[in-house]
Amino acid sequence: MTTDTSAAPLLRTGRLPTPADVDRWQAADRAARPRRLAALRERMRAEGVDAYFGVRRENTRYLTGMELGDGEEKVAGNSGQFLVSADEVVVLADSRYTLQAAEQCPDARVEVVYNDLYSRWLEMLAALRPVAGGDRVHRLAVESGFVSHLTWRRLAEAAPDVELVPIDGWVEGQRATKEPAEFERIASACAVADAALERLLPRIVPGVSEHELALALEWEMRTTGAEALAFDVACLAGARAALPHGSPTDRAVSAGEVLLFDFGAQVYGYRSDMTRTLFVGEPARRDREIYDLVATAQQAAFDALAEAVGRGDAPVGRAIDGAARGVIEAAGYGRNFGHGLGHGIGLATHEAPSLGRQAPPAPLPSPTVFSVEPGIYLDGETGVRIEDLVLFDLAAGRLERLTAFPREMTVVGG
Amino acid sequence: MTTDTSAAPLLRTGRLPTPADVDRWQAADRAARPRRLAALRERMRAEGVDAYFGVRRENTRYLTGMELGDGEEKVAGNSGQFLVSADEVVVLADSRYTLQAAEQCPDARVEVVYNDLYSRWLEMLAALRPVAGGDRVHRLAVESGFVSHLTWRRLAEAAPDVELVPIDGWVEGQRATKEPAEFERIASACAVADAALERLLPRIVPGVSEHELALALEWEMRTTGAEALAFDVACLAGARAALPHGSPTDRAVSAGEVLLFDFGAQVYGYRSDMTRTLFVGEPARRDREIYDLVATAQQAAFDALAEAVGRGDAPVGRAIDGAARGVIEAAGYGRNFGHGLGHGIGLATHEAPSLGRQAPPAPLPSPTVFSVEPGIYLDGETGVRIEDLVLFDLAAGRLERLTAFPREMTVVGG
Repeated sequence: MTTDTSAAPLLRTGRLPTPADVDRWQAADRAARPRRLAALRERMRAEGVDAYFGVRRENTRYLTGMELGDGEEKVAGNSGQFLVSADEVVVLADSRYTLQAAEQCPDARVEVVYNDLYSRWLEMLAALRPVAGGDRVHRLAVESGFVSHLTWRRLAEAAPDVELVPIDGWVEGQRATKEPAEFERIASACAVADAALERLLPRIVPGVSEHELALALEWEMRTTGAEALAFDVACLAGARAALPHGSPTDRAVSAGEVLLFDFGAQVYGYRSDMTRTLFVGEPARRDREIYDLVATAQQAAFDALAEAVGRGDAPVGRAIDGAARGVIEAAGYGRNFGHGLGHGIGLATHEAPSLGRQAPPAPLPSPTVFSVEPGIYLDGETGVRIEDLVLFDLAAGRLERLTAFPREMTVVGG
Repeated sequence: MTTDTSAAPLLRTGRLPTPADVDRWQAADRAARPRRLAALRERMRAEGVDAYFGVRRENTRYLTGMELGDGEEKVAGNSGQFLVSADEVVVLADSRYTLQAAEQCPDARVEVVYNDLYSRWLEMLAALRPVAGGDRVHRLAVESGFVSHLTWRRLAEAAPDVELVPIDGWVEGQRATKEPAEFERIASACAVADAALERLLPRIVPGVSEHELALALEWEMRTTGAEALAFDVACLAGARAALPHGSPTDRAVSAGEVLLFDFGAQVYGYRSDMTRTLFVGEPARRDREIYDLVATAQQAAFDALAEAVGRGDAPVGRAIDGAARGVIEAAGYGRNFGHGLGHGIGLATHEAPSLGRQAPPAPLPSPTVFSVEPGIYLDGETGVRIEDLVLFDLAAGRLERLTAFPREMTVVGG
């Protein structure tokens, strides 16, 4: 068993991506797609649906290879939406996307649509071989949490004899269990983020603004391997670090304050997410105590995970949340830790599994990657959060921290 | 009448935003919201609905003041969704967003929701005064193109006696007609983009990659007034300029090629959009001819608009498309101009009105802002597009090009 949650040297697990890496990942995805599709068809058979209509961009990429940027589905029309039948994957693309779809989806059939999806819907369904057997598609699963109600109604009107079955989480459930080439990209995204924060440290001095630091950190990531951000950089100084959600402002950083960075990179589709709470100059005693408490709570979660890996037994997510939360509650800060301990990550920044207080009582999937991010927030005063990504693999007896940046208190600009 | 479509000096109309500008825009938005809401309630009364449930982030901002970033609605849960009744606007916010909502929506009631929207839905509707009169909300308009089918089903189940009325485009229709403080922000976003391209020019030399130039242009905008991009920068060299949709690659720019930039900035919520096709070194004769043709087509559209302003008469969008398209068709390139002439712009990059071939035959709204962007694309060879934003105001007899960067052929890195 390899358990390392304390001292991962920078870039040990992850490293900056090279063009050869990208080629390898592309090939691995292509090789994995038949297994992913087989698992989906298994579920479809079990639930008695004949075909599947997907619209969520992460699911498009996972099952077809077609790459859409974050938010691009809002302007892409039907492009990137897909159908899965017994023997085919059909990717929809309008004239702007046909070349891209043909290149990125070599194993799918590309169906060119020009604002005519609804008028051609019956004919398109008629061409599909039903998964559940039978003469035609009678029941069609539709990703109901991501399709608009307007689209749903139009599909229903276009094929009144086809029952639309609202489903959610089928592909997301599969995506929670990660393949080696998925780990690698998350680890690489972690490495990009780690290195970017490392390079930013000398620029953190009293007087510089949250906004300037956030932009500089973004720039570091995007010029050294990140194809995009996982999400907008949060950089919050002093009392603003207590905001559960906050954007960088023009407020200048002062000595004696905490400075919280929550950020992540994206590498060939896969994301990282980390938080570090730094100290600008000598920390106040109260801030130091809170930092130590949060670090101890995070370690308690790592220990509970290591124990589970040692036993070869998958814990439920809320048990790991409980291990960290217990430390914070015992110190009297229970009500200052208002969010869950962690979340899965991959093609989306937040995905299954959940390590929250209200997480479903199911054992964690394996292998998987998730965040461990306890925090303590004192309204109007200060806030501390430490967030690392962890690779959890029961079969391999492996628990590994993918975030390599030191967890120890870091003093800057002193 | 002021008509200037050829020689707007840089920053004449727009200029970089200052903090005082932002304060003024914020105040103008707040002052305008009662009128915007009155117009919506008028429509609600006419259509016999009692209340309105909105989920689209641009509509949230327009009617309530609450600011969500592009794509943030995907992680915000119900935060930022809103209800309009006869006498109230109610903004939903979970614990992450309550402070922000209270600050940005001083004239709305903030309703705190924690994953309990559906269990509290009946009670929330019961607290609303119906627009159509009567004892309670019987009919609720819902933005069906933006609400997921899953949410729609849950709302229907939570209040079976309330009829959900699928509607779309009501607020979008209002947004097409712009207020002075909206013009100003679009003009300012144009100025940011104009200045950024101006500063980028010396860096365009053979050997630099599309990706490097796109990132540098983004950086110029985001460090000089753009709070965000309107959309990812497109930078396409040579034959890639013929792609109707394409992301920057590591391909290096070569002498003798066209280099197409399509990009925009965002200033306090409002966006710009411009395209320039530059020449790296001496242009080939064919490219020069195509450039001149596209510029002539754009001028034909400007002339048709100026004529309409002179007559005081709003043309239909497709007539303006036809004026530009006629020039391109007459030269034999009709099938190489595969998209519409233009689109409205504001809180969204693409909004009403449409200046396309299939645009509805309604007269253009006024005052409004839209793009004029003819293009000619020769597959596998080259592509040219020129795109400017235009302010169109019939009542003021005003037609003005907001994009100030020269339209003349620009040769760089020669």
